[in-house]
Amino acid sequence: MDSLIEPRVLKGFRDFLPAQEAPRKHIIAVLEQTFARYGFLPIDTPILEYTEVLLGKGGGETDKQIYRFQDHGGRDVAMRYDLTVPFARYMAAHLPDLYLPFKRYHVGKVYRGENTQRGRYREFVQCDFDLVGVDSASADFEILLLMNRSFTNLGVERVSFHIAHRGVFNRFLGRLDLRESAEEVLRTVDKLSKVGRDKTLESLAGLSTPETAERILDYITPKESNMETLRNIEELSGGPSEESARLRAILAYAEEAGVAGRFRLDPSITRGLDYYTGIVYETFLDELPDIGSVCSGGRYNNLASLYTKERIPGVGSSIGLDRLVAALEELGRLPAGGSGAQVIIFNLDDTMVGYYHRLGEVIRGAGFACEVYPENRKIQAQFSYAEKKGVPVGLFCGPEEQKRGVVNLRDLSARENFDGLSIDEAIARIRHLTTGGPTPL
Amino acid sequence: MDSLIEPRVLKGFRDFLPAQEAPRKHIIAVLEQTFARYGFLPIDTPILEYTEVLLGKGGGETDKQIYRFQDHGGRDVAMRYDLTVPFARYMAAHLPDLYLPFKRYHVGKVYRGENTQRGRYREFVQCDFDLVGVDSASADFEILLLMNRSFTNLGVERVSFHIAHRGVFNRFLGRLDLRESAEEVLRTVDKLSKVGRDKTLESLAGLSTPETAERILDYITPKESNMETLRNIEELSGGPSEESARLRAILAYAEEAGVAGRFRLDPSITRGLDYYTGIVYETFLDELPDIGSVCSGGRYNNLASLYTKERIPGVGSSIGLDRLVAALEELGRLPAGGSGAQVIIFNLDDTMVGYYHRLGEVIRGAGFACEVYPENRKIQAQFSYAEKKGVPVGLFCGPEEQKRGVVNLRDLSARENFDGLSIDEAIARIRHLTTGGPTPL
Repeated sequence: MDSLIEPRVLKGFRDFLPAQEAPRKHIIAVLEQTFARYGFLPIDTPILEYTEVLLGKGGGETDKQIYRFQDHGGRDVAMRYDLTVPFARYMAAHLPDLYLPFKRYHVGKVYRGENTQRGRYREFVQCDFDLVGVDSASADFEILLLMNRSFTNLGVERVSFHIAHRGVFNRFLGRLDLRESAEEVLRTVDKLSKVGRDKTLESLAGLSTPETAERILDYITPKESNMETLRNIEELSGGPSEESARLRAILAYAEEAGVAGRFRLDPSITRGLDYYTGIVYETFLDELPDIGSVCSGGRYNNLASLYTKERIPGVGSSIGLDRLVAALEELGRLPAGGSGAQVIIFNLDDTMVGYYHRLGEVIRGAGFACEVYPENRKIQAQFSYAEKKGVPVGLFCGPEEQKRGVVNLRDLSARENFDGLSIDEAIARIRHLTTGGPTPL
Repeated sequence: MDSLIEPRVLKGFRDFLPAQEAPRKHIIAVLEQTFARYGFLPIDTPILEYTEVLLGKGGGETDKQIYRFQDHGGRDVAMRYDLTVPFARYMAAHLPDLYLPFKRYHVGKVYRGENTQRGRYREFVQCDFDLVGVDSASADFEILLLMNRSFTNLGVERVSFHIAHRGVFNRFLGRLDLRESAEEVLRTVDKLSKVGRDKTLESLAGLSTPETAERILDYITPKESNMETLRNIEELSGGPSEESARLRAILAYAEEAGVAGRFRLDPSITRGLDYYTGIVYETFLDELPDIGSVCSGGRYNNLASLYTKERIPGVGSSIGLDRLVAALEELGRLPAGGSGAQVIIFNLDDTMVGYYHRLGEVIRGAGFACEVYPENRKIQAQFSYAEKKGVPVGLFCGPEEQKRGVVNLRDLSARENFDGLSIDEAIARIRHLTTGGPTPL
């Protein structure tokens, strides 16, 4: 006999048991329904692409992390490492078939060969949503509104959306003659919450002077109210500008739409990417500030410049499913794993299997998930299965009951029996036991 | 300026526009809800696995088609080419954490570097469902019942489930002294519908004698009724056996559950795989017989023998999403692409954007998908967008209307206006226009 193969998965990759996969699917479904409610449409793209398409002609930082190989035809191919680059390629390829503004969402797996020591995965799911083809405060705000609604629909009320504007920050840096070091300043500021105020001041002073470092910290520190913060950064950046007006408009929309309470103007948010040019967003759970942002994004002024001369501005955001799931789990707000069934029909007699399946169809037709135990094992084994799977209601029916047209139900957690019920009575009882419907007479 | 990169996708890979992706997602959702209704639970596995795990120690036929490469750590890895092998590995890996019988479904992308000339894709979605850990007629029938309900829920009523039993066929071949050529006979028979009766007889005669070939064809030809077919194959295979009793039980369950009309005992169905050992299934759409089986499967007696000494019998089936989508499209039963929104709020005045978003939230709160046009462009451009996206209802509100607390609605297809409505009146009108609810007073 051949030796066995070890059934292992690659490091950084994961199997999902039903108790994990069911809530993941539920979260994705809630998000997708929310996206659709705002008129966002689903798209999909391949997981495998030409390497040139994903990395550009040079290839860069991401190069080291990417899963890249030669396919059978000798093509240089790679697995996508995010959903943004494929979306840019998609917009360039399909512009004639689409209309602008275009609002899409995309939920899919992406791949990065990162060091798994840092608790990162090499295969993970991203949920992206973008509104492209328009540069307006209304579009910027719509993404925020959608982020807000997504968390509400997930049952997370205590959440803060931190917003800032890269353009205002750039004006501010220009006044300090720090435009050249802008990227470095941005990167230093971006680490503020991780390394603390003193270390950040020290790093910033190294780029300029201690006085300038203080001014930068003043700039990025939120004040008592959003309006005070706005006035402060407006002043420090040389007075009102197109960019600060954009922030002002978004804050006003939030007030008018009644969602301002969760929005915080936080000039320390810069996002570490060259990519964003306008507003930037991060999302923090008030009860779990340490896990960092669970939904981030911002405005970019040219999505698809690698592939087309058409300028496509846009604004969007991305939710990392893993961090969100971990957070919801920690908050105890992860939906239950889902037993998959509300009723189990026990097999008491193998000659009755056809009848059991018929009963199953009737119960499913009444709107309940129902399973039929698939063989005539000892009732203890069948109970044990139902318990492990968390099925709340058991149905018993032997030849006697079949003859009388009745069934017996058992509330499997309370261990209470309801015997001799007609099918209609049984369904009313199941409704009561599983959904808290009215007590049957 | 750098030259542009062509935004192309790899041959055999596809982008999905919203009009394609929305119905695909809808079909998957219907299937997943159906699976859950029968107590099947979702799982997921990585797309990338150790090559040894996917191909076994030797590697075989599939080897040539597989996407295989060395990762950064020098590991020999491959993209999964089906969902069955990963499921086998999964069961072996997690047996201690699971309970048997285990019922799972899995919807995911798989990869095969096949010749795309044959109209096949290199990246495609499979929907698998299996019931493992038990070998019973009840389990065999449950998969059939679930196949039946899946097509009903997809709106496909005219569908036939063809079933046969590999074990009965093997007994029959044994009587003809053709057990040694069993695989070859199976393969020849499997092509009957493609190559026709005469060619099949010829091929079979080549393996035995013309008389034997005739007997084989008699065996595989369905008779007037399922019972006559069963009697015929029972007789030709040497009389009643455990295997023919299994078929008889399944047919009896189908009668009792009221679904027998769609079930056809068809001994020509063998499935070309070594893998199946018991009942085998194929599914044909009566209106589109030429597209072949849209859902196939059967019973296997040992799922995970490559990875564990535990014997795990099971039964399952797989739906190929692409073929199903193509079929539903041809039958005109593909759900509409989905505009993503039922109402669009036009932007008549940029000072009112906050109010528009507030109105949007109210309309969404009433249960409608609603979008806010994201900038103040000419109304013709906004109309054109709504038309392209297929949004049925437009909402207009200028400063005058805001002051009066009213809005104007327009049925965008009938070009009918409803002016000066309160928000409540507007919602009643939207309900009427989009869902055929009662005409508002």
